[in-house]
Amino acid sequence: MATLFKDVYILDGSREKAALGHVLVSKGRIVSVTEAGAEQSADLNLKADKIISGHKRMAVLPGFVNAHTHAAMTLVRGLGEEAPLMEWLTEKVWPVEAKLTAEHIYWGTLSAILEMLATGTTCFADMYFEMDRVAEAALQTGIRAALCRGMTADSNDKDKINKSLSENLELADKWHGREGLITVQLGPHAPYTVPVEDMKKIAKAAKEHGLGVHLHYLETEFELNYIKNELKTSPEDYLINTGLMDAPHLVLAHAVYLEPELADKLKLSNLTLVHNPCSNLKLGSGVMKLSEWLDKGAAVALGTDGASSNNRLDMWEEMRTAALLHKGVNKDPVCVSALDVLRMATYDGARAFGFAQKGLVREGWMADLVLVDLDKPHYIGANCENLAAYIVYAGSSADVIGTMVNGKWLYRNGDFPTLDKIEIMQRAMTAREEITR
Amino acid sequence: MATLFKDVYILDGSREKAALGHVLVSKGRIVSVTEAGAEQSADLNLKADKIISGHKRMAVLPGFVNAHTHAAMTLVRGLGEEAPLMEWLTEKVWPVEAKLTAEHIYWGTLSAILEMLATGTTCFADMYFEMDRVAEAALQTGIRAALCRGMTADSNDKDKINKSLSENLELADKWHGREGLITVQLGPHAPYTVPVEDMKKIAKAAKEHGLGVHLHYLETEFELNYIKNELKTSPEDYLINTGLMDAPHLVLAHAVYLEPELADKLKLSNLTLVHNPCSNLKLGSGVMKLSEWLDKGAAVALGTDGASSNNRLDMWEEMRTAALLHKGVNKDPVCVSALDVLRMATYDGARAFGFAQKGLVREGWMADLVLVDLDKPHYIGANCENLAAYIVYAGSSADVIGTMVNGKWLYRNGDFPTLDKIEIMQRAMTAREEITR
Repeated sequence: MATLFKDVYILDGSREKAALGHVLVSKGRIVSVTEAGAEQSADLNLKADKIISGHKRMAVLPGFVNAHTHAAMTLVRGLGEEAPLMEWLTEKVWPVEAKLTAEHIYWGTLSAILEMLATGTTCFADMYFEMDRVAEAALQTGIRAALCRGMTADSNDKDKINKSLSENLELADKWHGREGLITVQLGPHAPYTVPVEDMKKIAKAAKEHGLGVHLHYLETEFELNYIKNELKTSPEDYLINTGLMDAPHLVLAHAVYLEPELADKLKLSNLTLVHNPCSNLKLGSGVMKLSEWLDKGAAVALGTDGASSNNRLDMWEEMRTAALLHKGVNKDPVCVSALDVLRMATYDGARAFGFAQKGLVREGWMADLVLVDLDKPHYIGANCENLAAYIVYAGSSADVIGTMVNGKWLYRNGDFPTLDKIEIMQRAMTAREEITR
Repeated sequence: MATLFKDVYILDGSREKAALGHVLVSKGRIVSVTEAGAEQSADLNLKADKIISGHKRMAVLPGFVNAHTHAAMTLVRGLGEEAPLMEWLTEKVWPVEAKLTAEHIYWGTLSAILEMLATGTTCFADMYFEMDRVAEAALQTGIRAALCRGMTADSNDKDKINKSLSENLELADKWHGREGLITVQLGPHAPYTVPVEDMKKIAKAAKEHGLGVHLHYLETEFELNYIKNELKTSPEDYLINTGLMDAPHLVLAHAVYLEPELADKLKLSNLTLVHNPCSNLKLGSGVMKLSEWLDKGAAVALGTDGASSNNRLDMWEEMRTAALLHKGVNKDPVCVSALDVLRMATYDGARAFGFAQKGLVREGWMADLVLVDLDKPHYIGANCENLAAYIVYAGSSADVIGTMVNGKWLYRNGDFPTLDKIEIMQRAMTAREEITR
């Protein structure tokens, strides 16, 4: 089944300008990207089973990669809003999360996938528990996923990290690379919830098994002080001395209090930071130094974090917020461009989690694409030169009319061909009732 | 024509909790708001020509008031993105704006109204020129509008302010109070574009004619320095000594550099600040001290500013950004609640521009309402206690399924009953081409 996107704007994070042309997709890959006139278009028509005519009023973008989330937290969204952070966690979220069963997590994840597909996300990086069920949900849907078992110590269960690490490694054995759709990382929760010796053990396992590591790092000022005062080390030495920097790839979510001056001490080629601007704002964590990190040449991806601290799973909101926030906070209307955030939301996220040839609209690359309707008043004036700015500043996820993964439509004009939306919503509602009653 | 909203969530900025119940609308007003069971509902059925059954999966909110915009700037959206502020204005925006004709402004305004209605806005406060045509566009649509002629001095035309003031007063004569849909204010652009003697003249005219004043105030640090160093006065003394504080109502847009400590020196009952968080971020202006102003008891409304500095005309984005931004910048997850921003986006905006009995869902008040679809995955778990948080943090304008002004649908399920969307978009596109060629 070959699909031709005809007369569409083509845009990705590697292009200074969008192009008008045609994109042919077949067998899960982008077969050709043609900036061309009518003759070539006629040739392409013959190769396509299905033609989508954009009439120069649609755009094709790479699918978004939500580079840090906890998908099943859709089930705890809205619990204990607007409370101080520790009160919110200890009194509202954790007691309810403790009631979650594997079945709940399955349906909560599917409910999150509905939201993500409808807003153009083609891959999500998830840290949670009962990850086998998360993997099943992803595979069944057809969405790409980068999965890790969130590991935390427990004073009542000395062996908990060991057990979680075994689970995480089994998850990798079973799922890593499966159908090219799923990758697995190791997921130590954070320095303040995983003792240093355990962190070293996890880092060692990552290196031995050739797996990336995905953890929360310096989300809050508390965490910075914890590393300095309790662990008596520095943020950079912690990463180096635990061996985390030696993992095949290291993904640091949040990094609000990681100083860009440290860039020289860290192996940037092995490192991706994940910016979660909405979550960092909502929880009062602060504002990451994105502009400075980009200047240092760091790879920075974008994520929503869990639905309970955002509360959307919508990468358009993250792109827009990232592009606006830093201009205002730095009083610099030129910093963090629309193109920067588009690349962060696509290419940088894919690279962080081992999906090669994903995140650009390029010949031979994965056919993970978003189809955007530009036939709306807020796109009047959009052209090849300014399309990235229109998408990021004027666009929204309501403009998404199709989300394709591996060449297959997973969302198209309000429908989800691989999912039963009504059943998922019903099951998620039931799960919500069960955990909050 | 009476319309009954049955079994809907009812929420506005005056309610700690939403209620489940019924809202009856007739002759432009809310006739009854019933928190009730089946018997009353049966009575209400008889009074309604049209029943909208919400099945407890829809919400009725007051329509949003976009309290500071320049609607026709939809035509200059996306020009010269990501340039330093003065370069952007002097090289990109102003030369193009200078080519705008009255006809362009008419179609650009209608195009803005399409965007605003589709996102739940029922009233906009506009400062621009050729305001007669803006008034016509608004009246023809049926949307409410608060209009002022933006007045700036011109060194090449000594009489420009006098002419603009005459235009603004004629606008008031012709339109103020028209069909209850339109109010008129005086619109001196800003202290740095209107000489002090002219500002005094305008303030005096406002008092004499019983008109409010709407101006940009302390949007940027430059403006603060201008008042201090060029005008040799303080922000509070400027407002007092020019007589602006004696206007029937004074609306200060932006107010990024207005210090909350000044609250005691200003007549708060006569004053509304308009927060434009997205525009202030995008232009690198900075972050208004919203939380402190709310603590002082100030009335603060919300606005998008013009489409070229946002670039959306979507009050949901302003609510969400306002609710998130200040938590992050203040590192306080409790400040600026969802209910605060909902009230700002509705009631405070209406009050600022002389629309009494608008901005709450209350018996006898204006039937300016937004119908929101809650039958979506991101609303799972919403209930009366947490609905405001769901709307602000998890919701988006894509959830709007109806926008009613004065009891009439102006937007319903993608259609605009009072507007020809296709013609407007075509005309706006032509206007854009004419001014940028």
